[in-house]
Amino acid sequence: MPISRFTVGTLADLPDELRRRIEPIAERSGFVPNVFLSMIHRPSELAAFLDYHEALMERDSGLTKAEREMIVVATSAANECLYCVVAHGAILRVRSRDSEIADRIATNWRTAPVTDRQRVMLDFATRLARSPEDIGEADIERLREAGFDDDDIWDIGSITGFFALSNRMAQLLDLQPNAEFFVMGRQPRSD
Amino acid sequence: MPISRFTVGTLADLPDELRRRIEPIAERSGFVPNVFLSMIHRPSELAAFLDYHEALMERDSGLTKAEREMIVVATSAANECLYCVVAHGAILRVRSRDSEIADRIATNWRTAPVTDRQRVMLDFATRLARSPEDIGEADIERLREAGFDDDDIWDIGSITGFFALSNRMAQLLDLQPNAEFFVMGRQPRSD
Amino acid sequence: MPISRFTVGTLADLPDELRRRIEPIAERSGFVPNVFLSMIHRPSELAAFLDYHEALMERDSGLTKAEREMIVVATSAANECLYCVVAHGAILRVRSRDSEIADRIATNWRTAPVTDRQRVMLDFATRLARSPEDIGEADIERLREAGFDDDDIWDIGSITGFFALSNRMAQLLDLQPNAEFFVMGRQPRSD
Amino acid sequence: MPISRFTVGTLADLPDELRRRIEPIAERSGFVPNVFLSMIHRPSELAAFLDYHEALMERDSGLTKAEREMIVVATSAANECLYCVVAHGAILRVRSRDSEIADRIATNWRTAPVTDRQRVMLDFATRLARSPEDIGEADIERLREAGFDDDDIWDIGSITGFFALSNRMAQLLDLQPNAEFFVMGRQPRSD
Amino acid sequence: MPISRFTVGTLADLPDELRRRIEPIAERSGFVPNVFLSMIHRPSELAAFLDYHEALMERDSGLTKAEREMIVVATSAANECLYCVVAHGAILRVRSRDSEIADRIATNWRTAPVTDRQRVMLDFATRLARSPEDIGEADIERLREAGFDDDDIWDIGSITGFFALSNRMAQLLDLQPNAEFFVMGRQPRSD
Amino acid sequence: MPISRFTVGTLADLPDELRRRIEPIAERSGFVPNVFLSMIHRPSELAAFLDYHEALMERDSGLTKAEREMIVVATSAANECLYCVVAHGAILRVRSRDSEIADRIATNWRTAPVTDRQRVMLDFATRLARSPEDIGEADIERLREAGFDDDDIWDIGSITGFFALSNRMAQLLDLQPNAEFFVMGRQPRSD
Repeated sequence: MPISRFTVGTLADLPDELRRRIEPIAERSGFVPNVFLSMIHRPSELAAFLDYHEALMERDSGLTKAEREMIVVATSAANECLYCVVAHGAILRVRSRDSEIADRIATNWRTAPVTDRQRVMLDFATRLARSPEDIGEADIERLREAGFDDDDIWDIGSITGFFALSNRMAQLLDLQPNAEFFVMGRQPRSD
Repeated sequence: MPISRFTVGTLADLPDELRRRIEPIAERSGFVPNVFLSMIHRPSELAAFLDYHEALMERDSGLTKAEREMIVVATSAANECLYCVVAHGAILRVRSRDSEIADRIATNWRTAPVTDRQRVMLDFATRLARSPEDIGEADIERLREAGFDDDDIWDIGSITGFFALSNRMAQLLDLQPNAEFFVMGRQPRSD
Repeated sequence: MPISRFTVGTLADLPDELRRRIEPIAERSGFVPNVFLSMIHRPSELAAFLDYHEALMERDSGLTKAEREMIVVATSAANECLYCVVAHGAILRVRSRDSEIADRIATNWRTAPVTDRQRVMLDFATRLARSPEDIGEADIERLREAGFDDDDIWDIGSITGFFALSNRMAQLLDLQPNAEFFVMGRQPRSD
Repeated sequence: MPISRFTVGTLADLPDELRRRIEPIAERSGFVPNVFLSMIHRPSELAAFLDYHEALMERDSGLTKAEREMIVVATSAANECLYCVVAHGAILRVRSRDSEIADRIATNWRTAPVTDRQRVMLDFATRLARSPEDIGEADIERLREAGFDDDDIWDIGSITGFFALSNRMAQLLDLQPNAEFFVMGRQPRSD
Repeated sequence: MPISRFTVGTLADLPDELRRRIEPIAERSGFVPNVFLSMIHRPSELAAFLDYHEALMERDSGLTKAEREMIVVATSAANECLYCVVAHGAILRVRSRDSEIADRIATNWRTAPVTDRQRVMLDFATRLARSPEDIGEADIERLREAGFDDDDIWDIGSITGFFALSNRMAQLLDLQPNAEFFVMGRQPRSD
Repeated sequence: MPISRFTVGTLADLPDELRRRIEPIAERSGFVPNVFLSMIHRPSELAAFLDYHEALMERDSGLTKAEREMIVVATSAANECLYCVVAHGAILRVRSRDSEIADRIATNWRTAPVTDRQRVMLDFATRLARSPEDIGEADIERLREAGFDDDDIWDIGSITGFFALSNRMAQLLDLQPNAEFFVMGRQPRSD
């Protein structure tokens, strides 16, 4: 099974600057995530994609990194996006040190064992993901009542928005998750 | 009516490099589109947003610039996004030199007077926008039969994806279109 | 582009009585709205259509004429009806002396700058338009709490109902709006 | 249970001309259908309603009267409209001399024992009733291939449209069917 | 019209034990309900079906037998299942001694004259029938507030679940209701 | 986290006959699947549930056991049912000796690497699961063209129907999968 419906490149095809951003990710993970290989023939889009991702997922935020991955998994599952559910499900398992949480959120976030605050966050994110036209002041108010400030709300919304883009790219490409993502973080913790 | 639900900046707040990218746009249009002002407090996101937009909307493509704006208007209307429908409706009127086309596509792209090829394109784009989970090889095949090559298909999909992100940001922010967008390009052409 | 998928008549084809009702409308507007031309070959339906329209839109009512047009634009947009959105969008701009309101309501009434009372009215009307089966006593109660009396509620419902009919006729006919409707009332007011 | 949520009149309240139209209907049926009583306080709407109904349901048409009632029952069931399903279900039983057809069409027209031509007609009508925005040339073409001419297609569409209006009025009013409608035409025919 | 799309058996084809369970039902009704004939060629499924049905519909329960049939009719109507709406509509008329209630609930349970407690029950059952993914603790809480205990809630849910199965079997088979079901219990009561 | 919202029993609470059916399952798996514990207080329902399950999942069939589990996983994912997706996902991994297939089908069966015949099967099953009202002769025809005979079609439909019931019970109970199910069969095969 090819990893994308379209042309796939190798890191060697990339301009130096871009290659130098992806190599450390690949080293840390032990593999190059297929999403990068699938965008190599469009370096300016790949660069913007990396920048946007970093701006949202690496910044200091009122949301923990695990919470940000929860948003990705819940909204990607709502969009039935294989690559994002499997890859970010793996990252969520690692970040949360919980071997079951990704499958629980991907199957049905409403029944997942998250905090009340996280439940409000995922309710908002999945509705913004699937029916953005319905979002209004009352929804923002509910986030504020759950303790989120303006910066947090922006993060919830922009992560949801960015993966609205990613999910559509992955579906367009029929992008395949690396085999490693399926198993990563699945060992129940002994502690 | 404030232009955004959240903090709004001025160009003066921006790092030089970013300001120098927006100023020429503002000069050409005669005003600073509100989307930029709304993202000024998040310069790294704004930079990635500009880069991504440019990579898709300014590149040499098998799609004309008017066709790309058709995709934006049709998918943003499907998401009922005020800012994107009004702002990109204006750009579509200018790019296509057609004072009615934006209202026609925004109201119902199926009944709009577009070519058969554009109809296939808009059918694909609006379905990718609203139900990405259903997109598969048969849809790609239909695009190919309508004469689109892999690069064109990528463009249709990635523009749809990028505005899936933009629409959600605009809805999150309750972003208001500049007054100029409502009237731009509405004079029927005399020729 | 023909104005209808089916036979189109001229005013001369009409029985005197009907022609004498449409001529003054045409004189006031400066053109004969295409909806009339499209129904000329069915004079008894056209007569009933005119009577029903007049009974709802011209009567003394607790709703202003602009409010009645808001209902038409919001519900017709929910049905993606080109003719009704463009023609009644024009009338709404004229009646409300607001050059932006029609585009705002047509794109997404939820984010439009209307009063709280009007928001309750449009929420009810668009739900009655799209999922009448869900309407019940609680919805009527909400209208009453917003200050609408029985006669107002009847008007909101019957205008919604009448344009449920009109929207379907326009879609059936592929009815084209007159060019004049696209531009009418778009000049921002100087006062 | 009152027959309407709003004011109900008696025939005596009506202007002579209107009363003289309803009395023979009441005599033929043996009762005054509640829909008339519910509109008596709005005589100009009632008159337009009667005119429109007559123009569609009594005219010479390529559709039999039973076929027209099939459209009413199928689309009213799609809208879950109690009054119209029960009242026009009764009329369909009488017109078609079939004691089961109304329940079959109301529950699921797709599994009802109708001709292929009627199946195309009901498929079109129910889609026009529920998602008019999707109707286009291909749908009209399918009706033509099934043997319907332009006049028939107009009838299918306008009956659907008129009951889109009626269904919403009945739901708005919480209009109750006369008890007679529940039992009319239910005796299986001996021949 | 055959009663099923697939093989239909006769009681004589059944193992003795199963035949002895169905014969008394047939005697009481005066006919063998078609659902049994349609499953005769799968005796182990038929036996499980009968057992499950009996365990839910015959047990002592906080729900009356009429209330249980209300659940069947409302959820089967939501699934547009001809056999179950017609057959259980008949049983509901008999159990409730009300000749109109089945048509009222089948057309639109929201406007049917049921108690507040029954309304909460039908709201829950129809949502569990159509979108089980949305059901959560808040819904259970609402049932409890309406006076249902854990056993009642289980009954409401399991009857809904069992007819989710039955409706799909009937639709798969294109199962036809016996003619008797259409007329049973339709005589308005004189007392 | 309790395994059910309602009373949970132990095997010791069961009548001998039922306990003797569950014990070997528990021995083979190394644990008692929670679904059994959750139904112990309703032994007649549990017995019917076991019988029905066995009649469908253990019989000789034109569908392999892995294919039957594919139906369960795809339809349970469409219903977002945690217990069934996780438990039957595990069984599918074991039955198919494929560590990825369950996650692929659960996330989006359309993009899963199944045969054309299986794709037709899953398309039918998921539509029967979510909108049974739309299923008709054309769908049955498509299954036949893909090589399924009447017995196979019955199996596809009845498995879908049975898990329509199971999914609703699991959602009603908030039934929790045993921890073992999350990890079972996840080791990629070395051959």
